[in-house]
Amino acid sequence: MKQRNLTTTIIGLGLIGGTMAWALRDHELSGRIIGVDDNPLHSKRALELGIVDEILPLEKAVAAADLLFLAIPVTSAAALLPVILDQTDKQVITDVGSTKRGLVTAAEGHRKRGRYVPAHPMWGTEFSGPDAASRNVLEGVVNIICDPQDSDKDALALVENILKELGMRIVYMDSLSHDTHLAYVSHISHISSFALANTVLEKEKEEETIFNLASSGFESTVRLAKSNSDTWVPVFKQNKENVLDVLNEYISQLRKFKSSLEKENWDYLNELIESSNKIRKVLDKKQQ
Amino acid sequence: MKQRNLTTTIIGLGLIGGTMAWALRDHELSGRIIGVDDNPLHSKRALELGIVDEILPLEKAVAAADLLFLAIPVTSAAALLPVILDQTDKQVITDVGSTKRGLVTAAEGHRKRGRYVPAHPMWGTEFSGPDAASRNVLEGVVNIICDPQDSDKDALALVENILKELGMRIVYMDSLSHDTHLAYVSHISHISSFALANTVLEKEKEEETIFNLASSGFESTVRLAKSNSDTWVPVFKQNKENVLDVLNEYISQLRKFKSSLEKENWDYLNELIESSNKIRKVLDKKQQ
Repeated sequence: MKQRNLTTTIIGLGLIGGTMAWALRDHELSGRIIGVDDNPLHSKRALELGIVDEILPLEKAVAAADLLFLAIPVTSAAALLPVILDQTDKQVITDVGSTKRGLVTAAEGHRKRGRYVPAHPMWGTEFSGPDAASRNVLEGVVNIICDPQDSDKDALALVENILKELGMRIVYMDSLSHDTHLAYVSHISHISSFALANTVLEKEKEEETIFNLASSGFESTVRLAKSNSDTWVPVFKQNKENVLDVLNEYISQLRKFKSSLEKENWDYLNELIESSNKIRKVLDKKQQ
Repeated sequence: MKQRNLTTTIIGLGLIGGTMAWALRDHELSGRIIGVDDNPLHSKRALELGIVDEILPLEKAVAAADLLFLAIPVTSAAALLPVILDQTDKQVITDVGSTKRGLVTAAEGHRKRGRYVPAHPMWGTEFSGPDAASRNVLEGVVNIICDPQDSDKDALALVENILKELGMRIVYMDSLSHDTHLAYVSHISHISSFALANTVLEKEKEEETIFNLASSGFESTVRLAKSNSDTWVPVFKQNKENVLDVLNEYISQLRKFKSSLEKENWDYLNELIESSNKIRKVLDKKQQ
Protein backbone atom coordinates (compact mmCIF):
# COMPACT_ATOMS: atom_id res chain seq x y z
CA MET A 1 0.00 0.00 0.00
CA LYS A 2 1.60 3.26 -1.12
CA GLN A 3 1.99 6.08 1.39
CA ARG A 4 1.46 8.93 -1.06
CA ASN A 5 0.41 11.42 1.60
CA LEU A 6 3.47 10.91 3.73
CA THR A 7 5.60 13.94 4.55
CA THR A 8 9.23 12.89 4.84
CA THR A 9 12.14 14.82 6.29
CA ILE A 10 15.65 13.93 5.24
CA ILE A 11 18.29 15.18 7.65
CA GLY A 12 21.57 15.25 5.76
CA LEU A 13 21.36 15.74 2.00
CA GLY A 14 24.49 13.85 1.02
CA LEU A 15 25.11 10.60 -0.82
CA ILE A 16 22.78 8.36 1.21
CA GLY A 17 20.16 10.89 2.32
CA GLY A 18 19.89 12.13 -1.25
CA THR A 19 19.65 8.62 -2.66
CA MET A 20 16.88 7.76 -0.19
CA ALA A 21 15.01 10.93 -1.15
CA TRP A 22 15.27 10.09 -4.85
CA ALA A 23 13.98 6.59 -4.21
CA LEU A 24 10.97 7.86 -2.25
CA ARG A 25 10.22 10.35 -4.98
CA ASP A 26 10.64 7.90 -7.85
CA HIS A 27 8.39 5.35 -6.12
CA GLU A 28 5.82 8.03 -5.28
CA LEU A 29 6.08 7.16 -1.62
CA SER A 30 6.09 10.66 -0.27
CA GLY A 31 3.90 13.64 -1.14
CA ARG A 32 6.34 16.13 0.33
CA ILE A 33 10.04 15.82 0.99
CA ILE A 34 11.66 18.28 3.38
CA GLY A 35 15.42 18.65 3.59
CA VAL A 36 17.59 19.69 6.52
CA ASP A 37 21.32 20.30 6.17
CA ASP A 38 23.86 22.36 8.11
CA ASN A 39 25.67 23.09 4.89
CA PRO A 40 23.80 25.82 2.96
CA LEU A 41 25.53 24.77 -0.28
CA HIS A 42 24.18 21.25 0.09
CA SER A 43 20.69 22.59 0.83
CA LYS A 44 20.79 24.83 -2.22
CA ARG A 45 22.09 22.08 -4.46
CA ALA A 46 19.52 19.54 -3.21
CA LEU A 47 16.75 22.01 -4.08
CA GLU A 48 18.25 22.70 -7.51
CA LEU A 49 18.53 18.99 -8.26
CA GLY A 50 14.96 18.43 -7.13
CA ILE A 51 15.98 15.99 -4.42
CA VAL A 52 13.80 17.83 -1.88
CA ASP A 53 10.75 20.09 -2.17
CA GLU A 54 11.83 22.53 0.49
CA ILE A 55 14.45 23.26 3.12
CA LEU A 56 13.35 23.89 6.69
CA PRO A 57 15.16 24.43 9.98
CA LEU A 58 15.37 21.24 12.05
CA GLU A 59 12.59 21.95 14.51
CA LYS A 60 10.02 22.83 11.84
CA ALA A 61 11.14 19.90 9.71
CA VAL A 62 10.60 17.50 12.60
CA ALA A 63 7.19 18.96 13.43
CA ALA A 64 6.00 18.73 9.81
CA ALA A 65 7.17 15.15 9.17
CA ASP A 66 5.48 11.77 9.38
CA LEU A 67 8.78 10.03 8.71
CA LEU A 68 12.35 11.21 9.27
CA PHE A 69 15.59 9.83 7.88
CA LEU A 70 18.76 10.62 9.80
CA ALA A 71 21.48 10.61 7.15
CA ILE A 72 24.36 12.47 8.78
CA PRO A 73 27.66 11.06 10.12
CA VAL A 74 26.94 8.49 12.83
CA THR A 75 28.37 10.44 15.77
CA SER A 76 26.31 13.50 14.82
CA ALA A 77 23.29 11.26 14.33
CA ALA A 78 23.75 9.78 17.81
CA ALA A 79 23.97 13.28 19.27
CA LEU A 80 20.90 14.51 17.39
CA LEU A 81 18.64 11.49 17.89
CA PRO A 82 17.61 12.25 21.53
CA VAL A 83 17.00 15.90 20.57
CA ILE A 84 14.65 14.79 17.81
CA LEU A 85 12.96 12.21 20.03
CA ASP A 86 12.28 15.02 22.52
CA GLN A 87 10.32 16.79 19.78
CA THR A 88 8.60 13.64 18.55
CA ASP A 89 4.92 12.91 18.87
CA LYS A 90 3.74 10.26 16.35
CA GLN A 91 6.64 10.71 13.92
CA VAL A 92 8.73 7.73 12.92
CA ILE A 93 12.50 8.17 12.84
CA THR A 94 14.82 5.90 10.98
CA ASP A 95 18.43 6.24 9.85
CA VAL A 96 21.03 4.98 7.39
CA GLY A 97 24.18 4.76 9.56
CA SER A 98 26.96 2.18 9.10
CA THR A 99 27.09 1.58 12.85
CA LYS A 100 24.03 0.94 14.97
CA ARG A 101 25.17 0.49 18.56
CA GLY A 102 25.95 4.19 19.11
CA LEU A 103 22.53 5.29 17.89
CA VAL A 104 20.61 2.65 19.79
CA THR A 105 22.50 3.56 22.96
CA ALA A 106 21.76 7.25 22.41
CA ALA A 107 18.01 6.48 22.30
CA GLU A 108 18.04 3.95 25.13
CA GLY A 109 15.57 4.71 27.90
CA HIS A 110 14.05 7.63 26.01
CA ARG A 111 10.26 7.71 26.47
CA LYS A 112 9.95 7.93 22.68
CA ARG A 113 12.48 5.14 21.91
CA GLY A 114 9.69 3.17 20.21
CA ARG A 115 9.39 5.78 17.45
CA TYR A 116 12.96 5.04 16.30
CA VAL A 117 13.65 2.21 13.83
CA PRO A 118 17.43 1.67 13.44
CA ALA A 119 18.24 0.77 9.86
CA HIS A 120 21.25 0.44 7.60
CA PRO A 121 20.98 0.19 3.82
CA MET A 122 23.97 -1.78 2.50
CA TRP A 123 24.64 0.61 -0.31
CA GLY A 124 27.15 3.38 -0.88
CA THR A 125 29.79 4.72 -3.19
CA GLU A 126 33.08 6.47 -2.58
CA PHE A 127 31.52 9.84 -3.46
CA SER A 128 29.71 12.35 -1.29
CA GLY A 129 27.36 15.31 -1.33
CA PRO A 130 23.96 15.84 -3.03
CA ASP A 131 25.44 15.41 -6.51
CA ALA A 132 26.55 11.89 -5.55
CA ALA A 133 22.95 10.90 -4.74
CA SER A 134 21.87 8.19 -7.18
CA ARG A 135 18.59 7.03 -8.64
CA ASN A 136 17.38 3.46 -9.20
CA VAL A 137 20.12 1.84 -7.13
CA LEU A 138 18.32 0.53 -4.04
CA GLU A 139 16.29 -2.29 -5.56
CA GLY A 140 17.48 -5.65 -4.29
CA VAL A 141 19.81 -4.00 -1.78
CA VAL A 142 19.82 -5.37 1.78
CA ASN A 143 18.58 -3.01 4.46
CA ILE A 144 19.32 -4.17 7.99
CA ILE A 145 16.76 -3.33 10.66
CA CYS A 146 18.21 -3.64 14.15
CA ASP A 147 16.51 -4.56 17.43
CA PRO A 148 13.01 -4.54 15.89
CA GLN A 149 11.46 -5.55 19.24
CA ASP A 150 12.37 -2.12 20.66
CA SER A 151 10.40 -0.16 18.06
CA ASP A 152 6.66 0.53 18.22
CA LYS A 153 4.75 -1.85 15.99
CA ASP A 154 3.31 0.89 13.79
CA ALA A 155 6.71 2.58 13.44
CA LEU A 156 8.37 -0.67 12.44
CA ALA A 157 5.55 -1.49 10.02
CA LEU A 158 5.83 1.91 8.34
CA VAL A 159 9.57 1.55 7.76
CA GLU A 160 9.18 -2.07 6.61
CA ASN A 161 6.49 -1.05 4.13
CA ILE A 162 8.56 1.76 2.73
CA LEU A 163 11.65 -0.44 2.32
CA LYS A 164 9.60 -3.17 0.65
CA GLU A 165 8.05 -0.64 -1.73
CA LEU A 166 11.59 0.41 -2.65
CA GLY A 167 12.35 -3.24 -3.45
CA MET A 168 14.91 -3.55 -0.65
CA ARG A 169 15.62 -6.87 1.11
CA ILE A 170 15.08 -6.53 4.86
CA VAL A 171 17.42 -8.45 7.18
CA TYR A 172 16.86 -8.32 10.97
CA MET A 173 19.75 -8.28 13.36
CA ASP A 174 20.54 -7.17 16.89
CA SER A 175 22.56 -3.99 16.95
CA LEU A 176 25.58 -5.59 18.65
CA SER A 177 25.88 -8.29 15.98
CA HIS A 178 25.37 -5.69 13.28
CA ASP A 179 28.41 -3.72 14.36
CA THR A 180 30.56 -6.87 14.67
CA HIS A 181 29.59 -8.16 11.24
CA LEU A 182 29.99 -4.75 9.63
CA ALA A 183 33.54 -4.45 10.90
CA TYR A 184 34.26 -7.68 9.00
CA VAL A 185 32.53 -7.07 5.71
CA SER A 186 32.77 -3.33 5.30
CA HIS A 187 34.80 -1.28 7.78
CA ILE A 188 38.03 -3.28 7.34
CA SER A 189 37.73 -2.94 3.55
CA HIS A 190 37.86 0.80 3.97
CA ILE A 191 40.95 0.71 6.19
CA SER A 192 42.60 -1.75 3.81
CA SER A 193 41.99 0.66 0.97
CA PHE A 194 42.96 3.86 2.84
CA ALA A 195 46.24 2.26 3.92
CA LEU A 196 46.91 0.94 0.42
CA ALA A 197 46.49 4.40 -1.07
CA ASN A 198 48.85 5.84 1.56
CA THR A 199 51.38 3.09 0.80
CA VAL A 200 51.38 3.74 -2.92
CA LEU A 201 51.45 7.51 -2.48
CA GLU A 202 54.37 7.07 -0.09
CA LYS A 203 56.40 4.61 -2.19
CA GLU A 204 55.60 5.72 -5.70
CA LYS A 205 56.77 9.29 -5.97
CA GLU A 206 56.21 9.42 -9.70
CA GLU A 207 52.54 10.27 -10.01
CA GLU A 208 52.73 9.86 -13.78
CA THR A 209 53.80 6.26 -13.23
CA ILE A 210 50.82 5.46 -11.00
CA PHE A 211 48.64 7.05 -13.64
CA ASN A 212 50.18 5.02 -16.47
CA LEU A 213 50.47 1.71 -14.68
CA ALA A 214 47.43 1.61 -12.47
CA SER A 215 45.48 -1.39 -13.70
CA SER A 216 41.83 -2.08 -13.05
CA GLY A 217 42.94 -4.34 -10.18
CA PHE A 218 44.69 -1.50 -8.42
CA GLU A 219 41.75 0.81 -9.00
CA SER A 220 39.40 -1.75 -7.58
CA THR A 221 41.35 -2.24 -4.35
CA VAL A 222 42.02 1.45 -3.85
CA ARG A 223 38.62 2.81 -4.87
CA LEU A 224 37.30 3.11 -1.32
CA ALA A 225 40.25 5.34 -0.44
CA LYS A 226 38.29 8.14 -2.08
CA SER A 227 35.76 7.90 0.75
CA ASN A 228 34.99 10.87 2.92
CA SER A 229 36.69 11.20 6.32
CA ASP A 230 33.62 13.06 7.67
CA THR A 231 31.65 9.86 7.23
CA TRP A 232 34.31 7.35 8.17
CA VAL A 233 36.05 8.76 11.24
CA PRO A 234 32.70 8.61 13.11
CA VAL A 235 32.13 5.02 11.98
CA PHE A 236 35.54 3.91 13.25
CA LYS A 237 34.99 5.90 16.44
CA GLN A 238 31.71 4.15 17.16
CA ASN A 239 32.94 0.72 16.17
CA LYS A 240 36.43 0.99 17.59
CA GLU A 241 36.66 -2.38 19.38
CA ASN A 242 35.36 -4.47 16.50
CA VAL A 243 37.44 -2.63 13.95
CA LEU A 244 40.59 -3.04 16.04
CA ASP A 245 39.88 -6.73 16.44
CA VAL A 246 39.56 -7.33 12.71
CA LEU A 247 42.43 -4.96 11.89
CA ASN A 248 44.70 -7.02 14.15
CA GLU A 249 43.63 -10.15 12.31
CA TYR A 250 44.27 -8.42 8.96
CA ILE A 251 47.78 -7.39 9.99
CA SER A 252 48.47 -10.93 11.16
CA GLN A 253 47.22 -12.34 7.83
CA LEU A 254 49.53 -9.93 5.99
CA ARG A 255 52.42 -11.08 8.20
CA LYS A 256 51.82 -14.62 6.97
CA PHE A 257 52.35 -13.42 3.41
CA LYS A 258 55.43 -11.55 4.55
CA SER A 259 56.83 -14.62 6.28
CA SER A 260 56.17 -16.88 3.28
CA LEU A 261 58.11 -14.43 1.09
CA GLU A 262 60.98 -13.96 3.54
CA LYS A 263 61.36 -17.71 3.98
CA GLU A 264 60.74 -18.35 0.28
CA ASN A 265 58.17 -20.85 1.41
CA TRP A 266 56.25 -20.98 -1.89
CA ASP A 267 54.05 -23.87 -0.83
CA TYR A 268 52.83 -21.82 2.11
CA LEU A 269 52.27 -18.80 -0.13
CA ASN A 270 50.31 -21.03 -2.47
CA GLU A 271 48.21 -22.26 0.46
CA LEU A 272 47.49 -18.70 1.60
CA ILE A 273 46.33 -17.69 -1.87
CA GLU A 274 44.24 -20.82 -2.39
CA SER A 275 42.60 -20.32 0.97
CA SER A 276 41.69 -16.74 0.02
CA ASN A 277 40.22 -18.02 -3.25
CA LYS A 278 37.40 -19.53 -1.17
CA ILE A 279 35.86 -16.07 -1.14
CA ARG A 280 34.82 -16.84 -4.73
CA LYS A 281 32.12 -19.14 -3.48
CA VAL A 282 30.57 -16.36 -1.43
CA LEU A 283 30.89 -13.63 -4.04
CA ASP A 284 29.74 -15.78 -6.94
CA LYS A 285 26.68 -16.87 -4.97
CA LYS A 286 25.91 -13.20 -4.47
CA GLN A 287 26.09 -12.42 -8.17
CA GLN A 288 23.54 -15.07 -9.09
CA MET B 1 50.56 -1.51 -42.03
CA LYS B 2 48.70 -4.73 -41.21
CA GLN B 3 50.65 -7.97 -40.93
CA ARG B 4 47.96 -10.26 -42.34
CA ASN B 5 50.39 -13.00 -43.37
CA LEU B 6 51.93 -13.33 -39.95
CA THR B 7 51.83 -16.73 -38.27
CA THR B 8 51.55 -16.29 -34.53
CA THR B 9 52.11 -18.86 -31.80
CA ILE B 10 50.52 -18.32 -28.42
CA ILE B 11 52.16 -20.34 -25.66
CA GLY B 12 49.65 -20.55 -22.83
CA LEU B 13 45.98 -20.34 -23.77
CA GLY B 14 44.69 -18.77 -20.56
CA LEU B 15 43.24 -15.37 -19.72
CA ILE B 16 46.00 -13.21 -21.22
CA GLY B 17 47.22 -15.50 -24.02
CA GLY B 18 43.64 -16.03 -25.13
CA THR B 19 42.83 -12.33 -24.97
CA MET B 20 45.91 -11.53 -27.07
CA ALA B 21 44.89 -14.17 -29.62
CA TRP B 22 41.36 -12.74 -29.85
CA ALA B 23 42.77 -9.25 -30.38
CA LEU B 24 45.09 -10.41 -33.18
CA ARG B 25 42.21 -12.22 -34.81
CA ASP B 26 39.69 -9.39 -34.46
CA HIS B 27 42.19 -6.89 -35.89
CA GLU B 28 43.13 -9.28 -38.72
CA LEU B 29 46.77 -9.11 -37.67
CA SER B 30 47.56 -12.76 -38.06
CA GLY B 31 46.73 -15.17 -40.86
CA ARG B 32 47.28 -18.23 -38.70
CA ILE B 33 47.23 -18.58 -34.94
CA ILE B 34 48.87 -21.64 -33.39
CA GLY B 35 48.28 -22.59 -29.78
CA VAL B 36 50.54 -24.43 -27.34
CA ASP B 37 49.36 -25.49 -23.91
CA ASP B 38 50.45 -28.20 -21.46
CA ASN B 39 46.85 -28.62 -20.39
CA PRO B 40 44.95 -30.66 -23.02
CA LEU B 41 41.62 -29.32 -21.74
CA HIS B 42 42.75 -25.76 -22.35
CA SER B 43 43.97 -26.69 -25.83
CA LYS B 44 40.68 -28.35 -26.67
CA ARG B 45 38.65 -25.45 -25.30
CA ALA B 46 40.74 -22.84 -27.13
CA LEU B 47 40.09 -24.67 -30.41
CA GLU B 48 36.35 -24.95 -29.65
CA LEU B 49 36.11 -21.26 -28.85
CA GLY B 50 38.00 -20.39 -32.03
CA ILE B 51 40.79 -18.66 -30.14
CA VAL B 52 43.42 -20.57 -32.13
CA ASP B 53 43.40 -22.27 -35.53
CA GLU B 54 45.41 -25.29 -34.47
CA ILE B 55 47.34 -26.83 -31.60
CA LEU B 56 50.92 -27.92 -32.16
CA PRO B 57 53.67 -29.27 -29.94
CA LEU B 58 56.10 -26.58 -28.81
CA GLU B 59 58.95 -27.29 -31.21
CA LYS B 60 56.75 -27.29 -34.30
CA ALA B 61 54.87 -24.24 -33.09
CA VAL B 62 58.14 -22.33 -32.68
CA ALA B 63 59.40 -23.40 -36.10
CA ALA B 64 56.17 -22.37 -37.83
CA ALA B 65 55.83 -18.95 -36.19
CA ASP B 66 56.87 -15.45 -37.18
CA LEU B 67 55.82 -14.12 -33.80
CA LEU B 68 55.47 -15.90 -30.44
CA PHE B 69 53.70 -14.78 -27.29
CA LEU B 70 54.81 -16.36 -24.03
CA ALA B 71 51.70 -16.27 -21.86
CA ILE B 72 52.42 -18.79 -19.10
CA PRO B 73 53.28 -18.13 -15.42
CA VAL B 74 56.42 -15.99 -15.20
CA THR B 75 58.70 -18.63 -13.65
CA SER B 76 57.75 -21.15 -16.36
CA ALA B 77 58.19 -18.43 -18.97
CA ALA B 78 61.69 -17.66 -17.68
CA ALA B 79 62.57 -21.36 -17.84
CA LEU B 80 61.17 -21.77 -21.34
CA LEU B 81 62.54 -18.59 -22.91
CA PRO B 82 66.16 -19.83 -23.42
CA VAL B 83 64.82 -23.12 -24.83
CA ILE B 84 62.77 -21.21 -27.38
CA LEU B 85 65.65 -18.84 -28.18
CA ASP B 86 67.79 -21.92 -28.91
CA GLN B 87 65.25 -22.86 -31.60
CA THR B 88 64.85 -19.34 -32.92
CA ASP B 89 65.98 -18.13 -36.31
CA LYS B 90 64.19 -14.95 -37.41
CA GLN B 91 61.19 -15.37 -35.11
CA VAL B 92 60.23 -12.61 -32.72
CA ILE B 93 59.36 -13.58 -29.16
CA THR B 94 57.41 -11.38 -26.81
CA ASP B 95 55.56 -12.04 -23.57
CA VAL B 96 52.85 -10.76 -21.25
CA GLY B 97 54.35 -11.37 -17.79
CA SER B 98 53.72 -9.21 -14.71
CA THR B 99 57.41 -9.30 -13.83
CA LYS B 100 60.18 -8.60 -16.32
CA ARG B 101 63.50 -8.96 -14.52
CA GLY B 102 63.34 -12.77 -14.33
CA LEU B 103 62.66 -13.13 -18.05
CA VAL B 104 65.28 -10.62 -19.09
CA THR B 105 67.85 -12.34 -16.89
CA ALA B 106 66.93 -15.72 -18.35
CA ALA B 107 67.66 -14.41 -21.87
CA GLU B 108 70.77 -12.45 -20.92
CA GLY B 109 73.84 -13.30 -22.97
CA HIS B 110 71.90 -15.61 -25.29
CA ARG B 111 73.08 -15.21 -28.90
CA LYS B 112 69.42 -14.69 -29.89
CA ARG B 113 68.60 -12.21 -27.09
CA GLY B 114 67.79 -9.60 -29.74
CA ARG B 115 64.77 -11.61 -30.95
CA TYR B 116 63.07 -11.19 -27.55
CA VAL B 117 60.96 -8.12 -26.81
CA PRO B 118 59.91 -8.08 -23.12
CA ALA B 119 56.40 -6.69 -22.79
CA HIS B 120 53.65 -6.41 -20.20
CA PRO B 121 50.07 -5.47 -21.08
CA MET B 122 48.49 -3.74 -18.06
CA TRP B 123 45.28 -5.68 -18.32
CA GLY B 124 43.83 -8.63 -16.47
CA THR B 125 40.86 -9.90 -14.55
CA GLU B 126 40.55 -12.21 -11.57
CA PHE B 127 39.52 -15.11 -13.83
CA SER B 128 41.64 -17.67 -15.64
CA GLY B 129 41.61 -20.21 -18.46
CA PRO B 130 40.56 -19.91 -22.13
CA ASP B 131 36.96 -19.09 -21.22
CA ALA B 132 38.18 -16.01 -19.36
CA ALA B 133 39.84 -14.67 -22.53
CA SER B 134 38.07 -11.45 -23.53
CA ARG B 135 37.50 -9.56 -26.77
CA ASN B 136 37.72 -5.82 -27.38
CA VAL B 137 39.41 -5.02 -24.10
CA LEU B 138 42.95 -4.01 -25.06
CA GLU B 139 42.30 -0.72 -26.80
CA GLY B 140 43.78 2.17 -24.82
CA VAL B 141 45.50 -0.23 -22.42
CA VAL B 142 49.15 0.48 -21.57
CA ASN B 143 51.65 -2.13 -22.72
CA ILE B 144 55.10 -1.71 -21.19
CA ILE B 145 58.07 -2.62 -23.37
CA CYS B 146 61.21 -3.15 -21.31
CA ASP B 147 64.87 -2.58 -22.22
CA PRO B 148 64.07 -1.80 -25.89
CA GLN B 149 67.77 -1.20 -26.63
CA ASP B 150 68.46 -4.92 -26.12
CA SER B 151 66.04 -6.09 -28.82
CA ASP B 152 66.85 -6.24 -32.54
CA LYS B 153 65.41 -3.23 -34.35
CA ASP B 154 63.16 -5.31 -36.60
CA ALA B 155 61.90 -7.40 -33.69
CA LEU B 156 61.08 -4.29 -31.66
CA ALA B 157 59.40 -2.67 -34.68
CA LEU B 158 57.21 -5.72 -35.29
CA VAL B 159 55.98 -5.81 -31.68
CA GLU B 160 55.46 -2.03 -31.61
CA ASN B 161 53.46 -2.19 -34.84
CA ILE B 162 51.26 -4.99 -33.57
CA LEU B 163 50.58 -3.21 -30.25
CA LYS B 164 49.76 0.03 -32.05
CA GLU B 165 47.40 -1.78 -34.41
CA LEU B 166 45.67 -3.16 -31.31
CA GLY B 167 45.26 0.41 -30.07
CA MET B 168 47.51 -0.15 -27.06
CA ARG B 169 49.54 2.66 -25.50
CA ILE B 170 53.25 1.76 -25.43
CA VAL B 171 55.31 2.86 -22.42
CA TYR B 172 59.07 2.15 -22.35
CA MET B 173 60.82 1.28 -19.13
CA ASP B 174 63.91 -0.54 -17.96
CA SER B 175 63.10 -3.96 -16.54
CA LEU B 176 64.39 -3.13 -13.05
CA SER B 177 62.13 -0.07 -12.74
CA HIS B 178 59.23 -2.05 -14.17
CA ASP B 179 59.38 -4.59 -11.37
CA THR B 180 59.71 -1.91 -8.69
CA HIS B 181 56.75 0.10 -9.99
CA LEU B 182 54.62 -2.99 -10.48
CA ALA B 183 55.12 -4.03 -6.87
CA TYR B 184 53.60 -0.65 -5.93
CA VAL B 185 50.67 -0.42 -8.29
CA SER B 186 49.67 -4.02 -8.78
CA HIS B 187 51.38 -6.75 -6.74
CA ILE B 188 50.62 -5.20 -3.35
CA SER B 189 46.94 -4.81 -4.35
CA HIS B 190 46.76 -8.55 -4.79
CA ILE B 191 48.33 -9.30 -1.41
CA SER B 192 46.05 -6.73 0.20
CA SER B 193 43.06 -8.49 -1.31
CA PHE B 194 44.21 -12.07 -0.60
CA ALA B 195 44.84 -11.19 3.05
CA LEU B 196 41.50 -9.38 3.32
CA ALA B 197 39.65 -12.43 2.05
CA ASN B 198 41.51 -14.64 4.54
CA THR B 199 40.67 -12.19 7.33
CA VAL B 200 36.99 -12.17 6.58
CA LEU B 201 36.83 -15.93 6.06
CA GLU B 202 38.64 -16.35 9.39
CA LYS B 203 36.57 -13.87 11.41
CA GLU B 204 33.17 -14.22 9.83
CA LYS B 205 32.16 -17.83 10.29
CA GLU B 206 28.62 -17.20 9.08
CA GLU B 207 28.92 -17.44 5.32
CA GLU B 208 25.30 -16.41 4.93
CA THR B 209 26.13 -13.16 6.69
CA ILE B 210 28.99 -12.33 4.34
CA PHE B 211 26.64 -13.09 1.50
CA ASN B 212 23.89 -10.85 2.85
CA LEU B 213 26.04 -7.98 4.03
CA ALA B 214 28.82 -7.82 1.47
CA SER B 215 28.46 -4.39 -0.09
CA SER B 216 29.91 -3.30 -3.38
CA GLY B 217 32.80 -1.78 -1.42
CA PHE B 218 33.74 -5.12 0.07
CA GLU B 219 33.43 -6.82 -3.28
CA SER B 220 35.64 -4.24 -4.86
CA THR B 221 38.46 -4.62 -2.34
CA VAL B 222 38.26 -8.40 -2.23
CA ARG B 223 37.76 -9.05 -5.95
CA LEU B 224 41.42 -9.77 -6.67
CA ALA B 225 41.36 -12.55 -4.06
CA LYS B 226 39.75 -14.69 -6.73
CA SER B 227 43.04 -14.58 -8.65
CA ASN B 228 44.86 -17.76 -9.54
CA SER B 229 47.78 -18.93 -7.37
CA ASP B 230 49.44 -20.53 -10.44
CA THR B 231 49.85 -17.03 -11.85
CA TRP B 232 50.59 -15.15 -8.67
CA VAL B 233 53.03 -17.31 -6.70
CA PRO B 234 55.54 -17.02 -9.60
CA VAL B 235 55.07 -13.24 -9.71
CA PHE B 236 55.79 -12.87 -6.00
CA LYS B 237 58.70 -15.29 -6.33
CA GLN B 238 60.30 -13.24 -9.07
CA ASN B 239 59.58 -9.90 -7.46
CA LYS B 240 60.23 -10.91 -3.88
CA GLU B 241 62.44 -8.00 -2.76
CA ASN B 242 60.19 -5.26 -4.15
CA VAL B 243 57.03 -6.91 -2.89
CA LEU B 244 58.50 -7.34 0.59
CA ASP B 245 59.55 -3.70 0.61
CA VAL B 246 56.09 -2.42 -0.23
CA LEU B 247 54.38 -5.01 2.00
CA ASN B 248 56.43 -3.72 4.95
CA GLU B 249 55.30 -0.21 4.14
CA TYR B 250 51.69 -1.39 3.88
CA ILE B 251 51.84 -3.09 7.28
CA SER B 252 53.35 0.04 8.77
CA GLN B 253 50.57 2.20 7.24
CA LEU B 254 47.98 -0.16 8.75
CA ARG B 255 49.72 0.14 12.12
CA LYS B 256 49.16 3.90 11.95
CA PHE B 257 45.42 3.28 11.64
CA LYS B 258 45.65 0.82 14.50
CA SER B 259 47.50 3.29 16.66
CA SER B 260 45.06 6.11 15.93
CA LEU B 261 42.19 3.83 17.01
CA GLU B 262 43.94 2.53 20.12
CA LYS B 263 44.83 6.03 21.23
CA GLU B 264 41.45 7.41 20.10
CA ASN B 265 43.41 10.01 18.24
CA TRP B 266 40.62 11.01 15.87
CA ASP B 267 42.51 13.96 14.41
CA TYR B 268 45.30 11.62 13.38
CA LEU B 269 42.80 9.16 11.90
CA ASN B 270 41.24 12.02 10.00
CA GLU B 271 44.68 13.00 8.69
CA LEU B 272 45.40 9.45 7.55
CA ILE B 273 42.13 9.25 5.65
CA GLU B 274 42.51 12.69 4.09
CA SER B 275 46.00 11.84 3.00
CA SER B 276 44.74 8.66 1.32
CA ASN B 277 42.05 10.71 -0.44
CA LYS B 278 44.85 12.22 -2.53
CA ILE B 279 44.70 9.06 -4.63
CA ARG B 280 41.54 10.62 -6.13
CA LYS B 281 43.62 13.03 -8.13
CA VAL B 282 45.52 10.18 -9.76
CA LEU B 283 42.53 7.94 -10.38
CA ASP B 284 40.27 10.72 -11.62
CA LYS B 285 42.93 11.86 -14.06
CA LYS B 286 43.06 8.32 -15.36
CA GLN B 287 39.32 8.19 -15.96
CA GLN B 288 39.34 11.28 -18.15
